[in-house]
Amino acid sequence: MRLCRFTVLGRHRWGIHTAEGVQPLARSPFDGGPVEPSGEVLPFDALTFEVPTTPSKIIGIGRNYADHAKELGNDVPPEPLIFLKPPSSLLPHEGVIRCPLGQSELVHHEAELGVVIARTTRNIDEADAASAILGYTLVNDVTARDLQRKDVQFTRAKGFDTFCPVGPWIDTAFAPGDQRIWLTVNGETRQDAHLSQMIFKVPFLVAYLSRIMTLERGDLIATGTPAGVGPLVAGDRVEVHIDGLGTLSNSVDL
Amino acid sequence: MRLCRFTVLGRHRWGIHTAEGVQPLARSPFDGGPVEPSGEVLPFDALTFEVPTTPSKIIGIGRNYADHAKELGNDVPPEPLIFLKPPSSLLPHEGVIRCPLGQSELVHHEAELGVVIARTTRNIDEADAASAILGYTLVNDVTARDLQRKDVQFTRAKGFDTFCPVGPWIDTAFAPGDQRIWLTVNGETRQDAHLSQMIFKVPFLVAYLSRIMTLERGDLIATGTPAGVGPLVAGDRVEVHIDGLGTLSNSVDL
Repeated sequence: MRLCRFTVLGRHRWGIHTAEGVQPLARSPFDGGPVEPSGEVLPFDALTFEVPTTPSKIIGIGRNYADHAKELGNDVPPEPLIFLKPPSSLLPHEGVIRCPLGQSELVHHEAELGVVIARTTRNIDEADAASAILGYTLVNDVTARDLQRKDVQFTRAKGFDTFCPVGPWIDTAFAPGDQRIWLTVNGETRQDAHLSQMIFKVPFLVAYLSRIMTLERGDLIATGTPAGVGPLVAGDRVEVHIDGLGTLSNSVDL
Repeated sequence: MRLCRFTVLGRHRWGIHTAEGVQPLARSPFDGGPVEPSGEVLPFDALTFEVPTTPSKIIGIGRNYADHAKELGNDVPPEPLIFLKPPSSLLPHEGVIRCPLGQSELVHHEAELGVVIARTTRNIDEADAASAILGYTLVNDVTARDLQRKDVQFTRAKGFDTFCPVGPWIDTAFAPGDQRIWLTVNGETRQDAHLSQMIFKVPFLVAYLSRIMTLERGDLIATGTPAGVGPLVAGDRVEVHIDGLGTLSNSVDL
């Protein structure tokens, strides 16, 4: 099932994304209990897609693919390297990534698998981590590479408004394995890897993070990016693809 | 006026903190319009204090007092050094700071002035920053110093549950100037400085941050700590004091 959030006639709603359109839900899938479609189907052109979760925090994982750590001159960390992106950086599918003019000269794309947390979770074991996960989505962890190098702390570089495209949906049936993850800019492939190349896998990450900070329903974990990160400039169209999960598309402007 | 949040009979409410007790408010002070007390006064022992804001993000400022930057062997940054603490780290006045057993051997206190944002704010000028501020509070930016050194990124070190005591209230009349800020552990003074020693002052910080990330109502800025940071251990009682603003008290346990 592919859960989405959208706006129709000024109201935020949840729905199930199908080939024919969106079936609105009577309530949030985070409220627990069965997900009940209302029966109607809204055509895609009647609605605007929103980010498919409302996280209290967005946790990023740095250097979780060996070839990406290497391309930036870093070692692979002995345990997950974590950072936070602010909720104000969220951007939906088809939203416009804004390069912060006068603040950064080098904005990079980073294709990532996103994990959405189902319920309040702390101190969970790796073996039980699946029960804490509602589903998966696509994330572009947009990063001002020049500011990341300058600041050392990642917060400013990864925290600008529009620097966290997420969507188009949460897929509750997807199971990360050896699927291909790739990113295109104007149709040209820039990043190309497989999810199996992640150093720290999803269940380990969920368990690890839950021993540091309580994970809340809707929280988002961006699991790190493979090699091939590179610049985005105004006019670009950037797409994150994961086999079996979908495509997250955004344009870039000033 | 001192705005507080509390729980009474299982319900979260807002109120005005007075010498006699708490006057409950009919609605959140963030909803705009005049703040209208309901007329009743609840005695302090009838309620439990909560963190006096519900931030979508908590922005910390590193090395904002020259003597603190120096004590940790750092230079004063040319512009504000920013980081994020997760909302899951929030802890109310009188809550218990938990040292993460088996993860950190060195948990430090950091006394700070907290700024609470009144409304959605982006690209504001320094001269107009006051209009974006609802009021001020006290913050203890608890930090696992060993993990901060090890990780380089501050996120884990500053992100554990209970590592962000905030309160007891938001003072809407307080104006930062040369007030004394100090911190005591079991009654002994450990940090002792004046707010005028901040390198980047509050209006500058609000304007600076608003050009990076949209500030939302309730967002919290922890403005950095002066020299004298040091360890907390189980059994300690730690208090942050700012002249004219109040005292934030917490105990420490495993």
